[in-house]
Amino acid sequence: MSKKKAIILLSGGLDSTTCLAIAQSENYDCYALSFRYGQKHSSELEAAQRIAKNAKVKLHKIIDLNLGSFGGSALTDDSIEVPKGGTEGIPVTYVPARNTVFLSIALAWAEVLEADFIFAGVNAVDYSGYPDCRPEYIDAFQKMADLATKAGIEGRGVKLITPLIDLTKVEIIQRGHSLGVDYSQTVSCYDADVDGKACGECDSCLIRKNAFESAQVSDPTIYHS
Amino acid sequence: MSKKKAIILLSGGLDSTTCLAIAQSENYDCYALSFRYGQKHSSELEAAQRIAKNAKVKLHKIIDLNLGSFGGSALTDDSIEVPKGGTEGIPVTYVPARNTVFLSIALAWAEVLEADFIFAGVNAVDYSGYPDCRPEYIDAFQKMADLATKAGIEGRGVKLITPLIDLTKVEIIQRGHSLGVDYSQTVSCYDADVDGKACGECDSCLIRKNAFESAQVSDPTIYHS
Repeated sequence: MSKKKAIILLSGGLDSTTCLAIAQSENYDCYALSFRYGQKHSSELEAAQRIAKNAKVKLHKIIDLNLGSFGGSALTDDSIEVPKGGTEGIPVTYVPARNTVFLSIALAWAEVLEADFIFAGVNAVDYSGYPDCRPEYIDAFQKMADLATKAGIEGRGVKLITPLIDLTKVEIIQRGHSLGVDYSQTVSCYDADVDGKACGECDSCLIRKNAFESAQVSDPTIYHS
Repeated sequence: MSKKKAIILLSGGLDSTTCLAIAQSENYDCYALSFRYGQKHSSELEAAQRIAKNAKVKLHKIIDLNLGSFGGSALTDDSIEVPKGGTEGIPVTYVPARNTVFLSIALAWAEVLEADFIFAGVNAVDYSGYPDCRPEYIDAFQKMADLATKAGIEGRGVKLITPLIDLTKVEIIQRGHSLGVDYSQTVSCYDADVDGKACGECDSCLIRKNAFESAQVSDPTIYHS
């Protein structure tokens, strides 16, 4: 019997890498999908390439899509600085409609590949500021996807799987650690340098650093000075 | 008072061009959005550029996104021929999840622009073979979009407007004609040559040709030999 095919959205960060490890542990044939979307932190993408290679995924596609040409986010817009320290509400690092765009393109690939599953490492707990990480959003995307595609019409819709959605960052690290994920390969920092060294001060770094501590897992992140 | 901003998905075809004319007649400030997505019929994109310019839209963005790298459609995959004559069911010219991808990217731009409207010339009548042209799909996309964005969370969601959804091709042409649309600028053919001359034989040409006849509007389409 052929294995189940799954597309894994792989940013190169901690969450998506854990998500890939979960899919592999559940015996899916994994196809990784990453985006060069104008992110300043391109070392994340190099991390995705290393991780996909080490995990021996079936195929890793990197899609070029210049969301940066719209501006509006500290992650893509040079005129907006990545904030340091904690922030309230929806952060300026939010990239407009990013998950919707990425999931839509994953849906297109899933249909061509005849993959029945898309894994996305979205997480509602630590990033509650992002609207497109909430369970109600994921449910609505699933309903839309069921109506959007030829596969859906033929009753063979693509199922969106978000294994991390209800986990805390600590639980994600513990889960990945138990699956043997090498977190030294991942880049979470919004402001990483070209070598992937983390700033240690942005929201993403602070959450990650605290989570390793609380998870009692040694933190392999390399911080610059 | 400032005018309402709208993003118009503009392929350069008959439907989207009519849609733009409708939005302009309703006094929206129009921002046109097109995609270089690997379509074989690139003369469509040149048509979009001419049309956007003639219509004096506020801005016309063309986003590069290589859906062709996934394959799977006669419109992007060189190994699949564009069929001639009528077809049954979901045609091979269906591009997987295309409208979902295009609408998602429009949503991203809308959020950055603070545009409250997206116009899409989808039409359920003549292309019932495409799942992502049906009203139930559009409704599901709207529900998802309301949950996806910062604007949605702040109660200022983006509204998707599909003025052609229930019109026949004949009615679309009559509507556009009454608004002064110059259909000689539009390209509908799935297999147009580099100058935008139509083949006259693919599904899209047949529907268009018959519709001009039935609408009793003179057909300005130039067919190659």
